Amino acid sequence: MNNNRQWLLAKRPHGVVTRDNFEYAEGPIPEPGEGEVLVRNLFLSFDPTQRGWMEDRESYLPPVQIGEPMRAGSIGQVVESNNDEFAKGDIVQTTGGWQDFLVAAPGQGVMGLSKVPEGVPPEMMLSVLGVTGLTAYFGLLDLGEPKEGETVLVSGAAGATGSVAGQIAKIKGCRVVGIAGGPDKCRWLKEEAGFDDVIDYKNEDVDARIAETCPNKVDVFFDNVGGDILEAALNHINMKARVVLCGGISAYNATEPVPGPTNLMNLVIMRGRMEGFIVIDYMHRAGEAITDLMGWIGAGELKYQVDMQEGFDNIPDTLNRLFTGKNLGKQLLKIADPS
Amino acid sequence: MNNNRQWLLAKRPHGVVTRDNFEYAEGPIPEPGEGEVLVRNLFLSFDPTQRGWMEDRESYLPPVQIGEPMRAGSIGQVVESNNDEFAKGDIVQTTGGWQDFLVAAPGQGVMGLSKVPEGVPPEMMLSVLGVTGLTAYFGLLDLGEPKEGETVLVSGAAGATGSVAGQIAKIKGCRVVGIAGGPDKCRWLKEEAGFDDVIDYKNEDVDARIAETCPNKVDVFFDNVGGDILEAALNHINMKARVVLCGGISAYNATEPVPGPTNLMNLVIMRGRMEGFIVIDYMHRAGEAITDLMGWIGAGELKYQVDMQEGFDNIPDTLNRLFTGKNLGKQLLKIADPS
Repeated sequence: MNNNRQWLLAKRPHGVVTRDNFEYAEGPIPEPGEGEVLVRNLFLSFDPTQRGWMEDRESYLPPVQIGEPMRAGSIGQVVESNNDEFAKGDIVQTTGGWQDFLVAAPGQGVMGLSKVPEGVPPEMMLSVLGVTGLTAYFGLLDLGEPKEGETVLVSGAAGATGSVAGQIAKIKGCRVVGIAGGPDKCRWLKEEAGFDDVIDYKNEDVDARIAETCPNKVDVFFDNVGGDILEAALNHINMKARVVLCGGISAYNATEPVPGPTNLMNLVIMRGRMEGFIVIDYMHRAGEAITDLMGWIGAGELKYQVDMQEGFDNIPDTLNRLFTGKNLGKQLLKIADPS
Repeated sequence: MNNNRQWLLAKRPHGVVTRDNFEYAEGPIPEPGEGEVLVRNLFLSFDPTQRGWMEDRESYLPPVQIGEPMRAGSIGQVVESNNDEFAKGDIVQTTGGWQDFLVAAPGQGVMGLSKVPEGVPPEMMLSVLGVTGLTAYFGLLDLGEPKEGETVLVSGAAGATGSVAGQIAKIKGCRVVGIAGGPDKCRWLKEEAGFDDVIDYKNEDVDARIAETCPNKVDVFFDNVGGDILEAALNHINMKARVVLCGGISAYNATEPVPGPTNLMNLVIMRGRMEGFIVIDYMHRAGEAITDLMGWIGAGELKYQVDMQEGFDNIPDTLNRLFTGKNLGKQLLKIADPS
């Protein structure tokens, strides 16, 4: 039976990802071995870091190999179980990839296999309580160390990670300014997410606007973008500033190496720190983050948005929404409804 | 009486500093007020950071003003004292500037005024026990946090700061590799300062040689240079690496902004930290550093070199020795012998 639809990595990208980088295939539905379960994917997660997984280079995870289904986090439903901890019908979180069916087991793959707690909607589990929410939580709190009254600047602020990072900073008593692209995103950040101010990088002079909106300078810069935005932020860091390097989406589709900021010496003059991290290192502390995040959501202090696309055929194009900035909030795609 | 010779800042540099940036002048010998002393400069300190003081921009110290004597640390001798703590003939450390005479008092100016301890040679006080030695000590130990068995890479390794940083790392049980320009400097680092290996950036492929000499990758990079050297080092950082930004001499004479490294995302992938500092912040802990440094010198574990120029007329040209790499070790200039 060949009814496991898949999008396989067909060739490595040079620049922007297109449908040509993937090949549609239909293969057999795999059979779970001892201790394993067969999962049907319902929702796929899209994250800027997936662009890096397509490159053949050493990184924090091995590259996706040519001919393999594209790697992606997912929420699915157990179809068949050889594992006592999982029953048919359970809603689970795993690294399902761009396909209908997969075999999974706890401790295997990037995300292992875990049940989605009763009553938590899948789109919440894949966004504010998922990798992007945890990235915001640990990056901001552990590396950024925001203190009450400090100024926190966030780039990619309307994204799934940036929007949560900014709101946590507000909860911690900081002045929070977000950088995002376009009036819709900026309006949402100010009116819904409660940011103190916003900078529309598509229509404003970012450097001048940072100076204007951060009169006490920037104590924490939570950066998802890199490039010119990082350079502009470094121009305005305060003494002992913390720059949290979360991502650098501005360069992910570049075909040539992109020069870094010309003003790294500001880190010396201002005794600043710039630090990178990967949320995988914090997975053993996920419970702590999820408890806090759920509390804030329940109290109405933390808003999140999900951009839900649909349809197996739309999977490759949905990845690009992250790079063209079309997504407002966490980018997901629904493959199927639970049975 | 107009016999206080001075080199005044005449115009701000654009690119390499030349004699034209300074104006020779002879002025009156100043008179010390209450609590002040008159000091005659004997030895001047030259440091790459002085290049930054000539620029009209916000930094960790105010810029030297046009018409002012160029700022510089110095060792001098008390000629006349209105302060009970200082007697005529005392050898003192202060921020004497490029001139014969100045008025100083404790707590005034960058370095204040302090007596050089009995028996400590002035050239030791201005080098390994001075600002450059303290910079190496606090930068390496407080920011770099080297652990036994780790690999420490140092750029500008034959300089007054780099050579001390590398040797402290050796004392702490690390594998230490230095990057320096030319065979003489490299030989001194290996044969005298005990570095495990050296890279001659003028004659070798730095990136390839880091890979070769740091088989376990780089845990601490102590950077005095920036630019291409920083980029090469970032290619080879280990997990949880610490990049200590001490200086960026490669760009100090640039006339256009110099792009930063293209590979800052390696800080994300490797969970690395890059941090800047200014030694002034550590001056209250100078005693702790000097005790350790003197102990290591006494035990023969810490070598230092002084490049001593002479003559008031040679002051402007001596600054450039730092940027052409002519100096081997700490750059000083003797104006006069103590009386």
